[in-house]
Amino acid sequence: MSVYNQSIDVPTKGKGLYEITEAVDTVLCKSAIASGIVTVFSRHTSASLVIMENADPDVLRDLQHWMDKLVPEGDTDFLHTTEGPDDMPAHIKVALTRTSETIPFSGGRMLLGTWQGIFLWEHRMARSNRNVIVTVIGE
Amino acid sequence: MSVYNQSIDVPTKGKGLYEITEAVDTVLCKSAIASGIVTVFSRHTSASLVIMENADPDVLRDLQHWMDKLVPEGDTDFLHTTEGPDDMPAHIKVALTRTSETIPFSGGRMLLGTWQGIFLWEHRMARSNRNVIVTVIGE
Amino acid sequence: MSVYNQSIDVPTKGKGLYEITEAVDTVLCKSAIASGIVTVFSRHTSASLVIMENADPDVLRDLQHWMDKLVPEGDTDFLHTTEGPDDMPAHIKVALTRTSETIPFSGGRMLLGTWQGIFLWEHRMARSNRNVIVTVIGE
Repeated sequence: MSVYNQSIDVPTKGKGLYEITEAVDTVLCKSAIASGIVTVFSRHTSASLVIMENADPDVLRDLQHWMDKLVPEGDTDFLHTTEGPDDMPAHIKVALTRTSETIPFSGGRMLLGTWQGIFLWEHRMARSNRNVIVTVIGE
Repeated sequence: MSVYNQSIDVPTKGKGLYEITEAVDTVLCKSAIASGIVTVFSRHTSASLVIMENADPDVLRDLQHWMDKLVPEGDTDFLHTTEGPDDMPAHIKVALTRTSETIPFSGGRMLLGTWQGIFLWEHRMARSNRNVIVTVIGE
Repeated sequence: MSVYNQSIDVPTKGKGLYEITEAVDTVLCKSAIASGIVTVFSRHTSASLVIMENADPDVLRDLQHWMDKLVPEGDTDFLHTTEGPDDMPAHIKVALTRTSETIPFSGGRMLLGTWQGIFLWEHRMARSNRNVIVTVIGE
């Protein structure tokens, strides 16, 4: 049994879902561990993770659009507004999605379903450079 | 330390929560590992996981009902409609719940709270056969 | 590789987010494991986990307020009402947030982002004593 840990950078240019499946897979390959779990961790409170359909881009567009309607900017009830109108909605969207995900693997390959991709979900409007930790544990 | 990996099938007959606690426990027993973590992973983007009260069936009914109101079918803003009116809502419900769960265990038993059950949450209307990966890591 | 398991108690006095980062860190230190993952597990169906900004208390206030509006008490559609008006909303809030979180660590320190804190989110109004399992796996 061993542990392999690597940080990956995810440059973002505004709100949206950025697929990181390949980047995670690259870390898994480097680890040379055959079977176990990969954990992915977002080190942010305004960008989150989600495992979502990666076939039809309309799914990502609809998901983003629906979430923006659920958590609109400019809610006059918000007290935390000093970091911009998109900051408090970003925190709420993080609370509603994931900070960590755990994916099993076997034979050196993640056991994702056919349509599953791993995404970093950027909730801020500005360009940013997000940081995700990938940890592989297994034998 | 060792790893034990097993796939379990979950036949579903439409929207609803299907308890899989026993099936997960069976994998844990087979692993013969005493202490560590069990991870459960849904290999789908229209069926998710949740750990929920398993005592009163009304809780599951209310949860389903509330979620159906939050993410109604027939939202005219959706672009992704070719796979049916329940497909895009299913993806959104997955984003709001879980794809992976991690449960600690000790003495060969999961440390679930008294009222906690592990559920696969089917978000499509049609019958299906869902696939969940259970991974046991420990010593 | 080894596993270290410890239960921590979180006394709560009504709805709100209670930071447990230090308590989790204490378990990590005791484990004397250098590198791997820490998993945190809430053994409840009316209290959950979330990793959130721990700098400005207004963020926690806004998050609580927004969630209370999304899942109001007294929804006349609820059938499960015998345990009080805050019970079914509590279950829904658990479904929308987390029961388990997984945080990577290296050099004996959790790799949390600068503003990230680990919180137990109490969704009931009454005082309670919540129980969280912290598991450290690594080498």
